[in-house]
Amino acid sequence: MKIAVAGATGEVGRAMTKVLQDLQVKPDEITFLASERSAGKEITFYNKSYKVEVLSEESITRGYDYILFSAGSKVSRQYAPLAAEAGSLIIDNSSAFRMEENIPLVVPEINGSLLKGYKGIVANPNCSTIQMVLSLYRIHEHYGIQKIVVSTYQAVSGAGHKGVAELEAQEGGDLENRAFSRQIHRNLIPQIGDFLDDGFSEEEMKMVNETKKILGDESILIWPSTVRVPVEYSHSETIYAETAKPFDLEELTDIIRSGENVTVTDDFTTPLDAAGKDATFVSRIRSFNSTGFVLWNVADNIRVGAATNAVRILKKHASLNDVK
Amino acid sequence: MKIAVAGATGEVGRAMTKVLQDLQVKPDEITFLASERSAGKEITFYNKSYKVEVLSEESITRGYDYILFSAGSKVSRQYAPLAAEAGSLIIDNSSAFRMEENIPLVVPEINGSLLKGYKGIVANPNCSTIQMVLSLYRIHEHYGIQKIVVSTYQAVSGAGHKGVAELEAQEGGDLENRAFSRQIHRNLIPQIGDFLDDGFSEEEMKMVNETKKILGDESILIWPSTVRVPVEYSHSETIYAETAKPFDLEELTDIIRSGENVTVTDDFTTPLDAAGKDATFVSRIRSFNSTGFVLWNVADNIRVGAATNAVRILKKHASLNDVK
Repeated sequence: MKIAVAGATGEVGRAMTKVLQDLQVKPDEITFLASERSAGKEITFYNKSYKVEVLSEESITRGYDYILFSAGSKVSRQYAPLAAEAGSLIIDNSSAFRMEENIPLVVPEINGSLLKGYKGIVANPNCSTIQMVLSLYRIHEHYGIQKIVVSTYQAVSGAGHKGVAELEAQEGGDLENRAFSRQIHRNLIPQIGDFLDDGFSEEEMKMVNETKKILGDESILIWPSTVRVPVEYSHSETIYAETAKPFDLEELTDIIRSGENVTVTDDFTTPLDAAGKDATFVSRIRSFNSTGFVLWNVADNIRVGAATNAVRILKKHASLNDVK
Repeated sequence: MKIAVAGATGEVGRAMTKVLQDLQVKPDEITFLASERSAGKEITFYNKSYKVEVLSEESITRGYDYILFSAGSKVSRQYAPLAAEAGSLIIDNSSAFRMEENIPLVVPEINGSLLKGYKGIVANPNCSTIQMVLSLYRIHEHYGIQKIVVSTYQAVSGAGHKGVAELEAQEGGDLENRAFSRQIHRNLIPQIGDFLDDGFSEEEMKMVNETKKILGDESILIWPSTVRVPVEYSHSETIYAETAKPFDLEELTDIIRSGENVTVTDDFTTPLDAAGKDATFVSRIRSFNSTGFVLWNVADNIRVGAATNAVRILKKHASLNDVK
């Protein structure tokens, strides 16, 4: 198996390299690609050191089996189609292709079967969407979810290295804004992405559109509010959902727990607890009736919300299609 | 007019003293009371210095017209009935009397008329409830609210001085927990108050029960999630609400704006923007249909959520009952 990581020096790229090792993916060859600015940097993979090469038409079309792409939408749009044409399976972390009709948007635990026999570009969903659908997909299968009201508490690492650096700089008294539009230290910013004409933000509409596509149900009404908080790693979400069929709360809890890579805990989980882990942590499942419930969910946004999902796509595709 | 502030040295007590001046309340006499530990401290009021006296049966029954009480539920339970019996109007910031049937729970902009001719104890609602009902009460009058899903982002000052001190200590590297059950610096704690048997927290049930009492409507279904965030002052809330009657979004926005002491802004407000102010700031009002909407609301939890509401109760009572 030949793998490339494109955007290898970014927050998600570095996590992809780490997660490949944590999930025991052992390629015969691996290549690390990034922009000219980052070329020449050293990356360690299974105790061997690799020099980062420049991402180019030549370097991206060397016949890799898999390319993990995390270099932003612009770079994905430019290079992913070329690389796919050259025969690689592309796992793209950007939003460039997610809503394209013929591109599968995959959370392997939910719709991984789409990968069987598939060639070309696979889209990795938005971080806040992945942990929400992992918390809810089994409920949707059993009771039919009709409505979701979700509020997010999103870590600064969602904006990459520069988001983390900005929080830390502001904690130290340097209050200049580089990554965010307002101070984030001791503050909240209820804007992630640009605002659209109807007042919802890009991040909010990603949650709406991607959830419907992943769950394969256009009828779910989703009311999102996405908010940046002064936390470094792990996104948290409060989720209210209404079901078509009535549930018993204990059964509902067991059904959430049956979700793959979902951990239901009695005590609540905080962002610090979830950071560096590969589970989506669900707690505080509670209800006043038999057709609505509220829960708290937390997951590492860089791992579960990006790198780990991408590597799980790779592993699922490899196993379904016997790529070794 | 004779006023006493009981619990004068706490986070809310100090704010009450400040807000009395900001809102131009000019009593003929004022007395500052606190526990033995804080007695003797100096408090400045309209450029005059006062010594804090010990709160006792004697000192609380000196025939004040108004007593602003913010010394916790235990102290309120012990002293407020005595003081009321002695003829004072008590404005109690604790949760001790809020849900008692014969005690008015007042947000003056909404149900201030309850104060006409009233004697005894008036309860000041919970901080997160006050800013929510101020954002919604005009909508409820016009369209009838049937369901609310609210998620809070609550500042550490909600736990008093010690909450603020703990965030600051943790920022400086002292990670010990004194005020909160988990680290709050760079983290979130989805628990405010104890958890009840059904899994909801005390803070969440305050929002449910107090909202129904203030709006005078037991039929509203409220789904709260309350979360502590690393912010010093101002609570924020994402609110989804469903109405009985359909609305036009522009009209709905104007109706929210018509609320007294409510400021609707085009750009969003952050906690830092709202700190030290007396308005409830509403922004990001948006919708996908004509019977549901989402908004973002922010207010200074110590002022709007406690001290300012208490002083507004005092002013409203004084004006309705001609107390001078």
